[in-house]
Amino acid sequence: MKFSELYGRDLICTQDWKKNELDLVLDLAFKMKRERFSPKYTNLLNYKTFLMFFYNPSVRTRQSFEVAATELGGHAQFLEPKSMRLKTQKTAGETIEDAAQVMSRYGHGLGIRILEDKVGFYGEGDDLLRDYAKWSSIPVISMAHDKYHPCQGLADVMGWTEWLCKGTEPDWNALKGKKLLVTWGHGALARSWCSVQEAMLIGSQYGMDVTVASPEGFDLDPQVLKWTEENCNNKDTHFETTNHPTKGYEGAHVVYSRHWMSPQAYLEGEFLKQKEIEKALKYPDWICDSKKMALTDNAIFTHPMPIDRGHEVTDEVASGSRSCIYDVAENRLHVQKAIMALTMTGL
Amino acid sequence: MKFSELYGRDLICTQDWKKNELDLVLDLAFKMKRERFSPKYTNLLNYKTFLMFFYNPSVRTRQSFEVAATELGGHAQFLEPKSMRLKTQKTAGETIEDAAQVMSRYGHGLGIRILEDKVGFYGEGDDLLRDYAKWSSIPVISMAHDKYHPCQGLADVMGWTEWLCKGTEPDWNALKGKKLLVTWGHGALARSWCSVQEAMLIGSQYGMDVTVASPEGFDLDPQVLKWTEENCNNKDTHFETTNHPTKGYEGAHVVYSRHWMSPQAYLEGEFLKQKEIEKALKYPDWICDSKKMALTDNAIFTHPMPIDRGHEVTDEVASGSRSCIYDVAENRLHVQKAIMALTMTGL
Amino acid sequence: MKFSELYGRDLICTQDWKKNELDLVLDLAFKMKRERFSPKYTNLLNYKTFLMFFYNPSVRTRQSFEVAATELGGHAQFLEPKSMRLKTQKTAGETIEDAAQVMSRYGHGLGIRILEDKVGFYGEGDDLLRDYAKWSSIPVISMAHDKYHPCQGLADVMGWTEWLCKGTEPDWNALKGKKLLVTWGHGALARSWCSVQEAMLIGSQYGMDVTVASPEGFDLDPQVLKWTEENCNNKDTHFETTNHPTKGYEGAHVVYSRHWMSPQAYLEGEFLKQKEIEKALKYPDWICDSKKMALTDNAIFTHPMPIDRGHEVTDEVASGSRSCIYDVAENRLHVQKAIMALTMTGL
Repeated sequence: MKFSELYGRDLICTQDWKKNELDLVLDLAFKMKRERFSPKYTNLLNYKTFLMFFYNPSVRTRQSFEVAATELGGHAQFLEPKSMRLKTQKTAGETIEDAAQVMSRYGHGLGIRILEDKVGFYGEGDDLLRDYAKWSSIPVISMAHDKYHPCQGLADVMGWTEWLCKGTEPDWNALKGKKLLVTWGHGALARSWCSVQEAMLIGSQYGMDVTVASPEGFDLDPQVLKWTEENCNNKDTHFETTNHPTKGYEGAHVVYSRHWMSPQAYLEGEFLKQKEIEKALKYPDWICDSKKMALTDNAIFTHPMPIDRGHEVTDEVASGSRSCIYDVAENRLHVQKAIMALTMTGL
Repeated sequence: MKFSELYGRDLICTQDWKKNELDLVLDLAFKMKRERFSPKYTNLLNYKTFLMFFYNPSVRTRQSFEVAATELGGHAQFLEPKSMRLKTQKTAGETIEDAAQVMSRYGHGLGIRILEDKVGFYGEGDDLLRDYAKWSSIPVISMAHDKYHPCQGLADVMGWTEWLCKGTEPDWNALKGKKLLVTWGHGALARSWCSVQEAMLIGSQYGMDVTVASPEGFDLDPQVLKWTEENCNNKDTHFETTNHPTKGYEGAHVVYSRHWMSPQAYLEGEFLKQKEIEKALKYPDWICDSKKMALTDNAIFTHPMPIDRGHEVTDEVASGSRSCIYDVAENRLHVQKAIMALTMTGL
Repeated sequence: MKFSELYGRDLICTQDWKKNELDLVLDLAFKMKRERFSPKYTNLLNYKTFLMFFYNPSVRTRQSFEVAATELGGHAQFLEPKSMRLKTQKTAGETIEDAAQVMSRYGHGLGIRILEDKVGFYGEGDDLLRDYAKWSSIPVISMAHDKYHPCQGLADVMGWTEWLCKGTEPDWNALKGKKLLVTWGHGALARSWCSVQEAMLIGSQYGMDVTVASPEGFDLDPQVLKWTEENCNNKDTHFETTNHPTKGYEGAHVVYSRHWMSPQAYLEGEFLKQKEIEKALKYPDWICDSKKMALTDNAIFTHPMPIDRGHEVTDEVASGSRSCIYDVAENRLHVQKAIMALTMTGL
């Protein structure tokens, strides 16, 4: 398979891509990390524009995408569609059919971020991205939406692999047979399902055993659980869910502790952030600490950041010697450069 | 006439420029469209900044100007003067004299957008642009203001000419003797006069017969009507206005159907958007549809976008085979690249 | 001393740097001004990002930093941390420890602006910058904060020196023995101490006699007054404060008239802007006018802009032949290019 085969592809969820396609992204991302400002890469996007639509604000995603375009010689244009008169069920405005077709005349790629408080129900953000993708002739890339966060998922497996292959060339099959624990953390921020769901999907695609742990009442999307289980079956690995706060830690190689909201977050037709925070704070024993980490197989601690320290994880673990959080965050940059180069330029 | 003669010029309305000057813009825009990333053009604005002042938000204008600067090797800086402490009659702040002189030290061109809800009376936006132009030593370009929208007007005539010369080199005299219908459309968005007024002025300057159609009570600026009539007299073409919803379609070659607000929009000292929307919705027969288009001389349908589908025009016409809307939208990019190159660099 | 010795340095206040280090900035800024688009400078920041954090909005600072990065071949990324979920005493969020370490992976420099209405007490902004500097591995540059404004201070001494050395190569010792009057102006904007305090500190470091004049009740930071006096003692020059509105003008070579708020601005735990404006308007005789300027030794008038004309200074003086305001404003660009080049690239 060649880099050029990814030209023009949308990236809305890693589950839409095959593992050998994702490997191509990781291969290139790793090269771009090693030779960050090499002339091999700094002119790939020359004079070209990546349009970024932030329905929701962001810091890390904005920073890493804009830096990525700059390092490839191009420009990432920051746009907030609140100033875009899009048609809705209630108001007149432009259709996605029109908006996407015009943008395809100007830009060479389109990133979209849309999360909980900007959608009316879980899945509406995913629908919107797929509608843009339908009408755009340029690649549509998710910059995190209600269901998935493919760039985070790729940065995760890249970081975990680097840590497990420490000192040697990373092998994108190194995660095979390793155990990933995705565990809920209590906390004071009501958080999206996108990052943890993407981690489960791509982790299982890369051959990991996957355990998902949370208190009762915090189930994730049944479709995503089902796909994760299917991925595990295809790879002959183990998938399980538990409501026990420590059991999943046993034998884990990667621990991913993060808060996520309950399926009730939308029940009354609006995003009930405050209610979710109150509910979450009732489970103070759901925190990743040294005692729990001692149950693992010397696991690394991972998190997509920003971290809610003291709730999701203790300072001791987050700033400890097995924390890969900054490396994963850095990988967002390299992975996104690779995705842009592959989908927007054909290399 | 040479390209370099446009160096340093402001562009606030096409009526301020001669036809042979506008032809230079179209010539260059057409070349830039054909060879979009040619090294002939990609370094014209190297390391230089086009300052964009958005008193009003925008999507298409923002996108196309920022992409334009990027494709010329420069940078368009997005600025929202709400964060600029400008002096007003009521508040202390910086004078335009000071702001413009300082910006002339930093940037190489200044774009300004200011529409209805940011001005106290019709014409105040135009006064503001001309005040900036007076104190700036760099070119001031309108990115749409209450009276005019020169970049849209240039994109319009470029697109119409390309469609009429389909398959052959465009001839900027091809619109001579063709009939332009500018017709009001009902709708749920209270819209500025700037785009339609610019179309009337530049269409008549390019030798078109011009018919302006609207319900009673929706007259445009008398000065613009007068200039359009004078342009027609100078070119020996026909100018007329009508309050009939279909009569103007007869024999038309270009149909421009768009909503615009009434002169009463400002009557009580503020912009009465909701009132205008209510008033407009009383005229549902003012919509461009296939039946009306059948009365024309196989006319093309044009619109500056965003379109209010179902009000200004039917889906059938807007997405039909004679709709030039996406080509005109694309031309915003090429025309603006040409304007920047000519006024800011002298080429 | 060599340019490269400034690589990696933070710039939070000019008082943190030695005069020979500041001279290096001025040397390079002056060369960059003379040969603004020379290939010697236009590739220094190629493909690199300067992250700009605007807790407070800004026009001139934003413009000049973003133009500066563009002219060096790089990109300044505009970020508003209101969309950044930072941890505070009351809310969950990201720590500066985490934010700064991740940004150090993406960017090559970090500018921060934080003023009165975004801090809870005088000095909190300075604490925040120093906390970012502690955790960042990239240089942290103040883009104006509650205490200091080093880029403005450098632009000031560069402009004053150019005016005093008119027609000849500037000598960065030319201000030695010249008298700087920093005088309070009445006005309708409650303004920060940062610009005037930086001017006192750098003016005294460059060997000027410094007089600070204000009505009673408008004292500046005692620590800054003390440092200024120490700088004067070290240079054998004269430092004094006065509450007299004209006495300080006598013999002055540089007159800096600007409003600043009283130490009571924060008294009740919030920034009392309206109260400050009311208080300030009670002193209409505190305005820099021609009559007062006649008492000086043919002084130049300086101001960091935006000017509150009619309050801080008359139009006659601000637009007069001895006003250096636009040159100083332009110098912001050159000084900031030099600072970026020196601290971010090592040249």
